[in-house]
Amino acid sequence: MKMKKDERRQAIQKAIDLNPFMTDSALCEMFGVSIQTIRLDRTYLNIPELRKRIKLVAEQNYEQIRALEANEVIGDLIQVAPNESAQSIIEVTEESVFAKTQIARGHVLFAQANSLCVALIHKSTVLTQESSIKFIEKVKLHDTVRAEAHVTDQTTHHFFIKVNSYVKDALVFQGTFKMFYISEDEANG
Amino acid sequence: MKMKKDERRQAIQKAIDLNPFMTDSALCEMFGVSIQTIRLDRTYLNIPELRKRIKLVAEQNYEQIRALEANEVIGDLIQVAPNESAQSIIEVTEESVFAKTQIARGHVLFAQANSLCVALIHKSTVLTQESSIKFIEKVKLHDTVRAEAHVTDQTTHHFFIKVNSYVKDALVFQGTFKMFYISEDEANG
Repeated sequence: MKMKKDERRQAIQKAIDLNPFMTDSALCEMFGVSIQTIRLDRTYLNIPELRKRIKLVAEQNYEQIRALEANEVIGDLIQVAPNESAQSIIEVTEESVFAKTQIARGHVLFAQANSLCVALIHKSTVLTQESSIKFIEKVKLHDTVRAEAHVTDQTTHHFFIKVNSYVKDALVFQGTFKMFYISEDEANG
Repeated sequence: MKMKKDERRQAIQKAIDLNPFMTDSALCEMFGVSIQTIRLDRTYLNIPELRKRIKLVAEQNYEQIRALEANEVIGDLIQVAPNESAQSIIEVTEESVFAKTQIARGHVLFAQANSLCVALIHKSTVLTQESSIKFIEKVKLHDTVRAEAHVTDQTTHHFFIKVNSYVKDALVFQGTFKMFYISEDEANG
């Protein structure tokens, strides 16, 4: 049995509060209604479209990063816990794919993951030293890629970070990064 | 003792014939004359400046690549022996560096190396599967990076490629790439 309109709208509000990056099509599936209905519900609830929600969250996060200018992050930074973890989202556009196959180019996923590693380290200077990466599934034009970075270890001058990137729930890219950093005191001393 | 003008000009012609990517400052050092003198000599010999020589060679090479459109190579392709080796050159511009440190961003060197691997494989579809990379020396704004890729092994569906990237003679980046390919027959079959 379908939910009544008011119930559904309440439930949509709750779902987006829990996960602001839920797509309209995921909401369609969740509530068994058309995409038009979801859009009308969002308009009624005054919830902006996904792209705007991402930008909004990203703007708040840019204040937390140190080694990068905000426009140097490749993708939209949707979560950051300094020196612990971070997440970003990119949409795969025409410029990011091979013309012939419409498959995303490797360096685009690498750039998202690598700049996420720089962004999450809360130090004045951060450089990449080593990386091992795997391209697991093809990423296609118009896919949305979410990268999750987690610090796995830290030494005096290094952070070790693991990045998993997903399209919906499918793991498409995996990488480990050894990042070199200089802290504020050293940089000034 | 310095060479006579005519001797020097002959020697410059020879040096550039051997290595069309020799910079004016390398020629200065080689012949112990000023950069103005080298420029005059090049003008007399009708040898275009380095940038034009690179573009000229790159244009000839683009005809040899299969999996990529010419504008999809990141850098100028200065040499390609299909399924064996390739070289490209990029100049590090403002967009490729961190604003704060003027150091080249990791993904720029990765993109040069990775697209070189795709370019050298003479098959209809080529995708990157795995890569391990090391950033050895900092690369700075206005540096010229030359990447050399060599195939180290080949199986039915994979090429294994090693890339070394240099600024002048200094090794700045090293990477290994496992590339997946589909050959023409399979793609059409």
